[in-house]
Amino acid sequence: MPRITRDDVRVPADVLEVSRERYIDNYLKATQGTGRLMLFACDQKIEHLNDDFYGEGIAADDASPDHLFEIGSKGTIGILAGQRGLVAHYAADYPDINYLVKMNSKTHLVKTAQDDPYSPQLYDLQTVLDLIDNGVNVVGVGYTIYLGSEYESQMMIEAGQLIADAHAVGLLVVLWIYPRGKAVANEKDAHLIAGAAGVACCLGSDFVKVNPPKGTDEMTSAQMLKEACSAAGRTGLVCAGGSTVEADVFLNQLWEQIHVGGATGNATGRNIHQRSLDEAVRLTKAISAITLGDMSVADAVRVFNGEEDFTV
Amino acid sequence: MPRITRDDVRVPADVLEVSRERYIDNYLKATQGTGRLMLFACDQKIEHLNDDFYGEGIAADDASPDHLFEIGSKGTIGILAGQRGLVAHYAADYPDINYLVKMNSKTHLVKTAQDDPYSPQLYDLQTVLDLIDNGVNVVGVGYTIYLGSEYESQMMIEAGQLIADAHAVGLLVVLWIYPRGKAVANEKDAHLIAGAAGVACCLGSDFVKVNPPKGTDEMTSAQMLKEACSAAGRTGLVCAGGSTVEADVFLNQLWEQIHVGGATGNATGRNIHQRSLDEAVRLTKAISAITLGDMSVADAVRVFNGEEDFTV
Amino acid sequence: MPRITRDDVRVPADVLEVSRERYIDNYLKATQGTGRLMLFACDQKIEHLNDDFYGEGIAADDASPDHLFEIGSKGTIGILAGQRGLVAHYAADYPDINYLVKMNSKTHLVKTAQDDPYSPQLYDLQTVLDLIDNGVNVVGVGYTIYLGSEYESQMMIEAGQLIADAHAVGLLVVLWIYPRGKAVANEKDAHLIAGAAGVACCLGSDFVKVNPPKGTDEMTSAQMLKEACSAAGRTGLVCAGGSTVEADVFLNQLWEQIHVGGATGNATGRNIHQRSLDEAVRLTKAISAITLGDMSVADAVRVFNGEEDFTV
Amino acid sequence: MPRITRDDVRVPADVLEVSRERYIDNYLKATQGTGRLMLFACDQKIEHLNDDFYGEGIAADDASPDHLFEIGSKGTIGILAGQRGLVAHYAADYPDINYLVKMNSKTHLVKTAQDDPYSPQLYDLQTVLDLIDNGVNVVGVGYTIYLGSEYESQMMIEAGQLIADAHAVGLLVVLWIYPRGKAVANEKDAHLIAGAAGVACCLGSDFVKVNPPKGTDEMTSAQMLKEACSAAGRTGLVCAGGSTVEADVFLNQLWEQIHVGGATGNATGRNIHQRSLDEAVRLTKAISAITLGDMSVADAVRVFNGEEDFTV
Amino acid sequence: MPRITRDDVRVPADVLEVSRERYIDNYLKATQGTGRLMLFACDQKIEHLNDDFYGEGIAADDASPDHLFEIGSKGTIGILAGQRGLVAHYAADYPDINYLVKMNSKTHLVKTAQDDPYSPQLYDLQTVLDLIDNGVNVVGVGYTIYLGSEYESQMMIEAGQLIADAHAVGLLVVLWIYPRGKAVANEKDAHLIAGAAGVACCLGSDFVKVNPPKGTDEMTSAQMLKEACSAAGRTGLVCAGGSTVEADVFLNQLWEQIHVGGATGNATGRNIHQRSLDEAVRLTKAISAITLGDMSVADAVRVFNGEEDFTV
Repeated sequence: MPRITRDDVRVPADVLEVSRERYIDNYLKATQGTGRLMLFACDQKIEHLNDDFYGEGIAADDASPDHLFEIGSKGTIGILAGQRGLVAHYAADYPDINYLVKMNSKTHLVKTAQDDPYSPQLYDLQTVLDLIDNGVNVVGVGYTIYLGSEYESQMMIEAGQLIADAHAVGLLVVLWIYPRGKAVANEKDAHLIAGAAGVACCLGSDFVKVNPPKGTDEMTSAQMLKEACSAAGRTGLVCAGGSTVEADVFLNQLWEQIHVGGATGNATGRNIHQRSLDEAVRLTKAISAITLGDMSVADAVRVFNGEEDFTV
Repeated sequence: MPRITRDDVRVPADVLEVSRERYIDNYLKATQGTGRLMLFACDQKIEHLNDDFYGEGIAADDASPDHLFEIGSKGTIGILAGQRGLVAHYAADYPDINYLVKMNSKTHLVKTAQDDPYSPQLYDLQTVLDLIDNGVNVVGVGYTIYLGSEYESQMMIEAGQLIADAHAVGLLVVLWIYPRGKAVANEKDAHLIAGAAGVACCLGSDFVKVNPPKGTDEMTSAQMLKEACSAAGRTGLVCAGGSTVEADVFLNQLWEQIHVGGATGNATGRNIHQRSLDEAVRLTKAISAITLGDMSVADAVRVFNGEEDFTV
Repeated sequence: MPRITRDDVRVPADVLEVSRERYIDNYLKATQGTGRLMLFACDQKIEHLNDDFYGEGIAADDASPDHLFEIGSKGTIGILAGQRGLVAHYAADYPDINYLVKMNSKTHLVKTAQDDPYSPQLYDLQTVLDLIDNGVNVVGVGYTIYLGSEYESQMMIEAGQLIADAHAVGLLVVLWIYPRGKAVANEKDAHLIAGAAGVACCLGSDFVKVNPPKGTDEMTSAQMLKEACSAAGRTGLVCAGGSTVEADVFLNQLWEQIHVGGATGNATGRNIHQRSLDEAVRLTKAISAITLGDMSVADAVRVFNGEEDFTV
Repeated sequence: MPRITRDDVRVPADVLEVSRERYIDNYLKATQGTGRLMLFACDQKIEHLNDDFYGEGIAADDASPDHLFEIGSKGTIGILAGQRGLVAHYAADYPDINYLVKMNSKTHLVKTAQDDPYSPQLYDLQTVLDLIDNGVNVVGVGYTIYLGSEYESQMMIEAGQLIADAHAVGLLVVLWIYPRGKAVANEKDAHLIAGAAGVACCLGSDFVKVNPPKGTDEMTSAQMLKEACSAAGRTGLVCAGGSTVEADVFLNQLWEQIHVGGATGNATGRNIHQRSLDEAVRLTKAISAITLGDMSVADAVRVFNGEEDFTV
Repeated sequence: MPRITRDDVRVPADVLEVSRERYIDNYLKATQGTGRLMLFACDQKIEHLNDDFYGEGIAADDASPDHLFEIGSKGTIGILAGQRGLVAHYAADYPDINYLVKMNSKTHLVKTAQDDPYSPQLYDLQTVLDLIDNGVNVVGVGYTIYLGSEYESQMMIEAGQLIADAHAVGLLVVLWIYPRGKAVANEKDAHLIAGAAGVACCLGSDFVKVNPPKGTDEMTSAQMLKEACSAAGRTGLVCAGGSTVEADVFLNQLWEQIHVGGATGNATGRNIHQRSLDEAVRLTKAISAITLGDMSVADAVRVFNGEEDFTV
């Protein structure tokens, strides 16, 4: 398992001197001391309403939001990302989870054909600091930008200011950046995704979550990811997990994203929580085996099968 | 009659430490010590102008807003929800009512075909705190979100911030969430309503008021409500009452919403205030007999008929 | 002449304790100790540009804004309503007039067919408090809402907050509410006007100025006004005067609005200021004879004819 | 030359007591102790880009902004009106000029056919107060309203608040009001211009700059201006100079505006700065001879011809 | 090499007295004591996404943002302009570079045919001051205005306020002004560019970056630039470098812009960073030889060829 020390943490220049140690604490917590990020995405109850949580092919456990916190506490993750209110409802009963408060969200009801996407910041940073003062273990905040939307400017403003303000007080920031809108022909274009990664670096986020590029006959998705990882510079890049696939396929993709593409971890939601609690917990461990433990796909599959355990 | 203690109240993590006891007080007041909510909705004078208060089939008593407060003080309710100005005009003469200040409202003059709905926040939270400082018995605030409207983002922002700010000072929050707008094909779809319930949980409200789903040949409305009650997680779900129906039909629906669907109470307006004062008072008692007293429909009908009394 | 005492003034619960006596002072000043409102509307120089002040059928005196203040000081009125700047230019020379600062205004250049109406708040409440600190006798503020406009939400927000803030410091609030916009088929519909009156009550204003409903074969305008006066609850309702008509016709309408319809006074502009100074002064006295003095139409006509005087 | 004393200055009631003497100082400075305003308009570099400063029929001197300040310091003017940044660049070298900071501006690139005009406030009043604290001789601020534009409300808000805030600290305010937009058929209509003048009075400005009305066969422009000067009440009215015409024609128009129409001075830009420095300086003196010195046209022409001097 | 002293620096009147020495420091740093500006533009990762950094004809070094800082530290430049987050990520490792924080940016995904350009301010000035307090060597801020866009007003507001606020604390301001939008027929028109230069002067910026005008058969681009340099007044004008051309061509253009057109320096991005590190470093030195060292084109080419060195 890779290990980094406090001195290895590269603290951005917008972290105020007084917040420097707190930033390092948060960085080490979020990456479990590895420099790699295992992000458990739990923001879909607004993004996709109940579509991801109830219906055919989804475990009954997933019908209630309790499921997310059960997984987060029993599994092995870096951070659990969810909206402020969700965290506020459950955090007292799940105090050990590292939380990332997702600052913006929208539903999927209005489609791009009707209007370009805008996901508004739902509460100010002070409300997050209040959670922390109340003892909630929040290590950072997250924000989604739809690049190329006609509302790009509004999201760029909110993200741009949020990163500065969050860093000032020592919180990490993860950006979700998805090119989307009438102006975007191909959301999975590798060169466009590299552009998104560069935007994250220029805005100053610590990590950026992007969709993996669509592979071609000549290059795999992971190979094409290299351009984006270069463009991201000192911002760590992680790929969204997408819809649920077989665990071994998923784990192999993840391994390649990290070891071929240069990704700094993973950001996974549906692939985890749409499973029953037991299976979901094992999958978090298998994912973390790769992301945090630098294990092979074969070993990670053994972890998923319950033949081996992985904790940090 | 179910009873909860101060220790049973699950205080969200965004209630500041200094406001914790006040939140518990408000929660116990609003639920009359039962954990269930009987909400008397009195915000229609803006929402529906005078249509709900004057005309055929509406008792003459309802022509003046005094009627609402007479019912609220003589009947048995949990909270009376109305706009800030309405409460300010009457509260001094009806000091014992638990008030919930409805923070946003719109008229129904502009229809969705002309423009998607936006209901703006009409005053800031400080104005509510001023009412409380002036001795008005306000226990919480309410806000309506039209999910799927092209203005969804504006309402999400206002609600998201309001909940944080209200909890910080120990006030309860009830969200009204109605999917509505050009993008919404079926407002009464059970799965969509479950999505709305999940949004309320993620925003962190204490209760959410939704429309009951439309039943099908195979499932009753109450059975279909289960999905939403699960999705709501720790946010209590109550159903809007809709237009006026026979009292026994209404009471039976309510009983099923709670005992089959898993609802945490009721939110009723027109069904109550469109009746004469005496009848309206008896209906509040019958509703509360079910919601707060956990009584049977038959017993509640007896209360409505004046054969029995119900108070808390 | 009806008389009310300080104890008769119903102080809304949003008047801060420290401002209670000031609110009562302002209420008694504005209603000249009667509980009835005689409002002299002087905000048309923005609303109608110079159309109401210059041209055929308009006295030459009306060409200069001085005319309004001459009438206000020599006639008998409750309050003179005008924009902040207008009051600031003249108040030092007319210190005894009770002023109501109209907070929003628009011109009539853009018609509803081109764009729905929005009348913006032109200055914040602090600028009014500064006038008061400078010794100007301001007793309240006014605001116009075009209900049913596509910009209804913006005006509802400004009015909603203004009322809370004005009451907090002990100022009266008068709302002008006119249903107007593409969504409004009949601005003079009695039921719609009743809706407007109910909105004023829910927003918490002290008075509301509406257009009188259009009478039908079966009911007079004054009879139809009853619905609105009921819906207004504790908000006093006064009717706009409209374009200039014969004095006796006007005075009879006013008497009926009060004694048949239940209105709490009058709000009159053009009917007064489009006359020569002498005639305008006499008309204010005749109007006040009815509104404030509870005199008969016949007696009021005598006052208009200069056969009798009326002062307060 | 007309002279007014400190006691003649009518101080509006929104000038805070503490700022009263400063307001009087500024009024006397701006009007050179005469009560009349000679405004040298230097805001066209944004309004008309380089069209007014370079090209056929324009003196080469006008190519550089230095020209404006050379004229302002060597000529005889009341105030030089320009944007904040322009003043900030040059004021240290031209300390004796009375500056009026123009608070809003737009270019002429987007035509009314594409979008109605909106000229945004470019900086807040505090930035002007900072200039004053830094020793710059600023006596007031200016703002343009396009009445009848679909963005009228935005400009009315900015102007309405600006006047209150500027008066509070003792600064003068000049409004430029031009009816313009799809809703405006005839910008030069005398009755409409009178409406604009009335708006200025209601907003509370000290002076208003309007276009002179278009004369007809029966009435000259100056005669038609009377309606506007009446409607302006206590707001002094000055006419825009328009494009460059012969000096004697220009001086005659100005004399008539003041002595026939009732104008309180002039507001002249292109007619001055498009000339060579020497000629421009002489024209400012000739204009001031009429506006400030109450001299005849013939005498003013002699000043322009250099046969006589005029200073204050 | 031209040299200016502290007394030669013309400090605008909006630099607060307390910030005067800091402004002079920053001015001398940014111009390397010459009064001329060599600006290395590194803001394209948002403006052009990854198009300028990866692909045919672009050196592999340019794929990672580290490249920009390597050039900045090893080459000879005046200031490196980049977004706040980019600077925050790297500044600690490159402490000697003079940074200019670019305050606004947009991607090129939405084309003008779909919507006119708006580049929003992404963070407030306080975040830049925080960087400085943290020890980052920031000497100024930058902002782009698209003149003639339907969103011109928003950018004018942000720029207008930013310049005042930045000067108040002693920071330099560079404006990028590009006429662009449906209303702009020819972005490279010399007269229009002169208008842009005049706008910069009126807003008060220290420098303005414009595109060089398109030359004609009769006049070279540099000759046509004279109009703009005059119109800019005390704002120094520098030309954007545009896409990559041969070094000697580029250096000759630059020399002519300065010595024929009257430019005050250069603003170059792609022409530098799309080269390998070694070549890019040599080009910065060659450019600075002309801009800062007042050397001939021939000498500058020798510097580019490595036959001579140039440092400051």
